[in-house]
Amino acid sequence: MLSNNVIKIITSLGSKKYRQKYNLFVVEGVKNIGEVIKSSIKVKELFITEDLWPEEESIKKTIIDDKDLKKISYLTTPNVGLALCELPNNPELKDFEGLAIALDDIRDPGNLGTIVRLADWFGIEHVLCTKESVDLYNPKVIMSTMGSFSRVNVHYIDLQDYLKNYNGNIFGTFMEGESIYENELPQEGILVMGNEANGISKEIENLTTHKISIPFFGKKGNTESLNVAVATSVILGEFKSQLSKKN
Amino acid sequence: MLSNNVIKIITSLGSKKYRQKYNLFVVEGVKNIGEVIKSSIKVKELFITEDLWPEEESIKKTIIDDKDLKKISYLTTPNVGLALCELPNNPELKDFEGLAIALDDIRDPGNLGTIVRLADWFGIEHVLCTKESVDLYNPKVIMSTMGSFSRVNVHYIDLQDYLKNYNGNIFGTFMEGESIYENELPQEGILVMGNEANGISKEIENLTTHKISIPFFGKKGNTESLNVAVATSVILGEFKSQLSKKN
Repeated sequence: MLSNNVIKIITSLGSKKYRQKYNLFVVEGVKNIGEVIKSSIKVKELFITEDLWPEEESIKKTIIDDKDLKKISYLTTPNVGLALCELPNNPELKDFEGLAIALDDIRDPGNLGTIVRLADWFGIEHVLCTKESVDLYNPKVIMSTMGSFSRVNVHYIDLQDYLKNYNGNIFGTFMEGESIYENELPQEGILVMGNEANGISKEIENLTTHKISIPFFGKKGNTESLNVAVATSVILGEFKSQLSKKN
Repeated sequence: MLSNNVIKIITSLGSKKYRQKYNLFVVEGVKNIGEVIKSSIKVKELFITEDLWPEEESIKKTIIDDKDLKKISYLTTPNVGLALCELPNNPELKDFEGLAIALDDIRDPGNLGTIVRLADWFGIEHVLCTKESVDLYNPKVIMSTMGSFSRVNVHYIDLQDYLKNYNGNIFGTFMEGESIYENELPQEGILVMGNEANGISKEIENLTTHKISIPFFGKKGNTESLNVAVATSVILGEFKSQLSKKN
């Protein structure tokens, strides 16, 4: 049985404050746990309901019952177990080639997780977030990255400051931007996506060099704009489409 | 104060059985309620915490307090109120032009909602679902369509049977399909997307005329395939990209 103290620590890790205090975060789901084990992130302990990953002898494992798992899990339907991991050092942000994504205050954990998973799929190594954006190590973000969090570098920075000093292309997505389908998209630069409710801030808008837009093909004018993660996928898809057709 | 009977009816509408029994469904969120009011769907009653939509004099309105709203809402954070609506008749599935989407057992409400919203954006009028797919009138699906449910025709049909008799292009998305970026995509046909866990069924796979795929640009081989709603957005984006470049 898990001690109350362990339960208390694990259930506190939903908050960034406690993740930083204990230097720990939680990974759930077979796929995610498998990925974190293979990554350079240190798994401190596995709390699992069956003895999975038997080949991983160096990792401390505690076999728990479903009742205890329910107590520590962040999922509505807990699944197999939970890995307690050490927060890795922040990745270093050096000069990079190709495309990076910048997120101007993304607040929804599912959106950040989906965008990190997309970045992984499309071979984008860096995601730059404003400090106000949802934290990568939020259990719901980690869950929705499906393991991609261990392969993409997510940086929390003063985005405005960074973009001011950046000399390359800065793409911003705006309703009134130019159609991504009718303009050549240079394959180097930073693609900025805005906050779910407010879009891109005025300050960052002023720093963009290319205002782009996904054209609307629907019938009526009052359709809600696309969700930010979906919009990111359409735009990244078009970047890759143009790249593939050039080669 | 709401009667227990009203609360009981509304909270039963999370289940398809009771939606059909009462011929009712629930719409929440300002945007969604606004859209349903403007649509041809009949709003039977609004339960709202403030007197919004004052111009809609023909709709019965009941002003409730936050406590009552909490009791009937399907949202973690209830917002403004809830519209009780009559289930519309099933849309008729006639011959159509252009592209339609078919979903082979989509189970996640957020995925269906996102795909309906995407269809609305990209001007796709018909979404064909297997009968086992999640129901459009599930409150979580309605919520995530952001109003698009009133503008897209979602049909629940024997998909296999329908595709057997369909003479046009049937696109299916498979890991081993041909790159969407390196093949011309005809602008007429049905795009089939598969179940979250199992993809497209063998029976429907056999009916596809084009096996397509979103190429992977990442570094390592063990990245999870893209989420079905995100994959749909990338593929629809490429259809529109090719269409735009032709014109």
